[in-house]
Amino acid sequence: MNEKVIYLDNNATTRVAPEVLEAMLPFFCDRYGNPSSIHRFGGEVAADIEQARRHIAELLGAHYRDRDDCASEIIFTSCGSEGDNAAIHAALAARPDRKRIVSSAVEHPGVLSCLKEWERRGYEVVLLPVDGKGQLDLGVLERAVDRDTALVTLMWANNETGTIFPIREACRIAHAAGALFHTDAVQAAGKEFIDVDDLQADYLSISGHKLHAPKGVGALFARRGIPFAPLILGGHQERMRRGGTENVASCVGLGEACRMAKAVLDDERRELARLRDKLEAGVLANIPEVHVNGDMEHRLPNTSSISFKYIEGESILMYLDMHHICASSGSACTTGSLEPSHVLKAMGVPYSSAHGTIRFSLSKYNTDADIDRTVEVLPPIIARLREISPYWKQR
Amino acid sequence: MNEKVIYLDNNATTRVAPEVLEAMLPFFCDRYGNPSSIHRFGGEVAADIEQARRHIAELLGAHYRDRDDCASEIIFTSCGSEGDNAAIHAALAARPDRKRIVSSAVEHPGVLSCLKEWERRGYEVVLLPVDGKGQLDLGVLERAVDRDTALVTLMWANNETGTIFPIREACRIAHAAGALFHTDAVQAAGKEFIDVDDLQADYLSISGHKLHAPKGVGALFARRGIPFAPLILGGHQERMRRGGTENVASCVGLGEACRMAKAVLDDERRELARLRDKLEAGVLANIPEVHVNGDMEHRLPNTSSISFKYIEGESILMYLDMHHICASSGSACTTGSLEPSHVLKAMGVPYSSAHGTIRFSLSKYNTDADIDRTVEVLPPIIARLREISPYWKQR
Repeated sequence: MNEKVIYLDNNATTRVAPEVLEAMLPFFCDRYGNPSSIHRFGGEVAADIEQARRHIAELLGAHYRDRDDCASEIIFTSCGSEGDNAAIHAALAARPDRKRIVSSAVEHPGVLSCLKEWERRGYEVVLLPVDGKGQLDLGVLERAVDRDTALVTLMWANNETGTIFPIREACRIAHAAGALFHTDAVQAAGKEFIDVDDLQADYLSISGHKLHAPKGVGALFARRGIPFAPLILGGHQERMRRGGTENVASCVGLGEACRMAKAVLDDERRELARLRDKLEAGVLANIPEVHVNGDMEHRLPNTSSISFKYIEGESILMYLDMHHICASSGSACTTGSLEPSHVLKAMGVPYSSAHGTIRFSLSKYNTDADIDRTVEVLPPIIARLREISPYWKQR
Repeated sequence: MNEKVIYLDNNATTRVAPEVLEAMLPFFCDRYGNPSSIHRFGGEVAADIEQARRHIAELLGAHYRDRDDCASEIIFTSCGSEGDNAAIHAALAARPDRKRIVSSAVEHPGVLSCLKEWERRGYEVVLLPVDGKGQLDLGVLERAVDRDTALVTLMWANNETGTIFPIREACRIAHAAGALFHTDAVQAAGKEFIDVDDLQADYLSISGHKLHAPKGVGALFARRGIPFAPLILGGHQERMRRGGTENVASCVGLGEACRMAKAVLDDERRELARLRDKLEAGVLANIPEVHVNGDMEHRLPNTSSISFKYIEGESILMYLDMHHICASSGSACTTGSLEPSHVLKAMGVPYSSAHGTIRFSLSKYNTDADIDRTVEVLPPIIARLREISPYWKQR
């Protein structure tokens, strides 16, 4: 594709920041040593990994008391899903007498698929419902968490609607019952202020490629003092918490992406929200029978889930694609399934709306021109699709 | 380090081939889409992943009957350790009634640490001994594998000595008892001819960074027709066999590295062996009381494990490092431990030799000049260290 792409699918994945790639480049063909090696050529690379770890700790608000401390709390992973799987694995091992896991119906597949497997292994898994805004009822959570609950795992922000859960209160409820608390912060990192120390979460997972670091790297925060059972066993890497030679270039890339995100988080949030609001205002002003999904008060600044009633989301996406505009109909991780999104279903979004729902997700690389073009292109697409929709005629 | 480094530690990690990096570069800042996305910008990237998968299948001798077939047999992983862990996990799930695992005492930590955990979970783990050459006795293996054995997992080639196991016969023995067979081929891939179809192995794991692809990517061959239980659960990626957004750039890099390795495997093997033999001849001719470890008949072409009696390997390494020569005293994954290598210990190498053992491991980037310089530098280092060694004086 040579034409310029308008990329509004940043919750699926983001462009690697050129500064991030630049930071990574020396570690492929030049400083390619193994950080575990005794010789300086390898060993010196370990310092670059520790610096990256520190940048991650700083973005997450993890204490960086000293290098040892940080190294034991920030564990490099290969992706958000590995982080989720590893956190759940570690938590259940740390609370071996408890056999219940509490989560929500709108989690990412990285959590839901993993919980399904633990259910097969004999755990009781409770998936809490959400309301029409995709929001959690804390009273329901409180009643679900009992003395048999090993873990409460709840996403910080939903990847499809951007709805932000009351993580702080949820964590408090989990701890009150002696359960551990994990949050999948894959969509929150780089967009929301995170302070694990204030939050007191036990585990928090992030993914590099959602915040302009490359695919194939992530990090798991695991609070010090809780026994940690690794998911991937091997050498002594990551203080025995994750085997396998460190993905040096990508660790450095993730560190740089976190450093950059932290430096401008305030400004970026404001700018993302401005563009997102402009997109929504433009769509609402120019297209009838549309609805914005999610919790308007507690929402990621970059995400807009819009239902175009009576038509098919896939068709909208294909028309947008012809105009080189990239968006999605839900999580890229469940694309290909003909089922409507499990998130919208849990929210009770009616079938006629859920099927015509598009997620627009912005990044710092989007411009006013991107939004203008999208608002210009969308109305005729929607009008044409509705013209041929039997549901539209029968409404 | 600005001085030119003589890198003889390629079993720890290798330089990313510039051609590999070049193949990867478009996927960071330009073609950064998510391969699971519906839009072309993302979806088109999936074809690049499949091409990479094909290159891997070809290096491993896996049938590439069609795209579906290949996709179900070659699973991208984040490293060799993940591949080892995933293979063991999958095999035990596929043979749930059998509770015994047979392996060897000289496996890589990616296998040994994992087996230790399965032992803790109630499996009987049998680690077969090796002889003085690091070689396996097939009769001993045959007696160890019984009808309760779920899995036989044996490395193709040892990372410390280069000794190559009789994998083909071992696989036959496993299958005769109804057990599954996995081989950790991390050190063999790109150096030995591999043909999984001829071998009939059920699982085979490789790691990118040992064959000039980047760190943080690997592949697991898992034979079609055997139920597969994923280690990392998430979205529908890798045909539901490994969750998490694909590490696109690194997958493409691994594919390119496999393509390059296959194209010149014959020539490279010959050249590596020539340089290795030259190094060994030079050392043996110029230094007394040295011994080359491993099976001289069945050995990787690039690896030389040399014991310099009565002195400490770490001291030799530090002197070599001052001359910008990188080598190692064993696996980088166990560096930092003061114990002598578990491999040399299993081979019965006496303490006075094991402690002074250096692994030299070459790659296609090494030259005659590298070897000449090493052979020139080593004798005075060894002589000086022996001068101050009490063991040398008492010998």
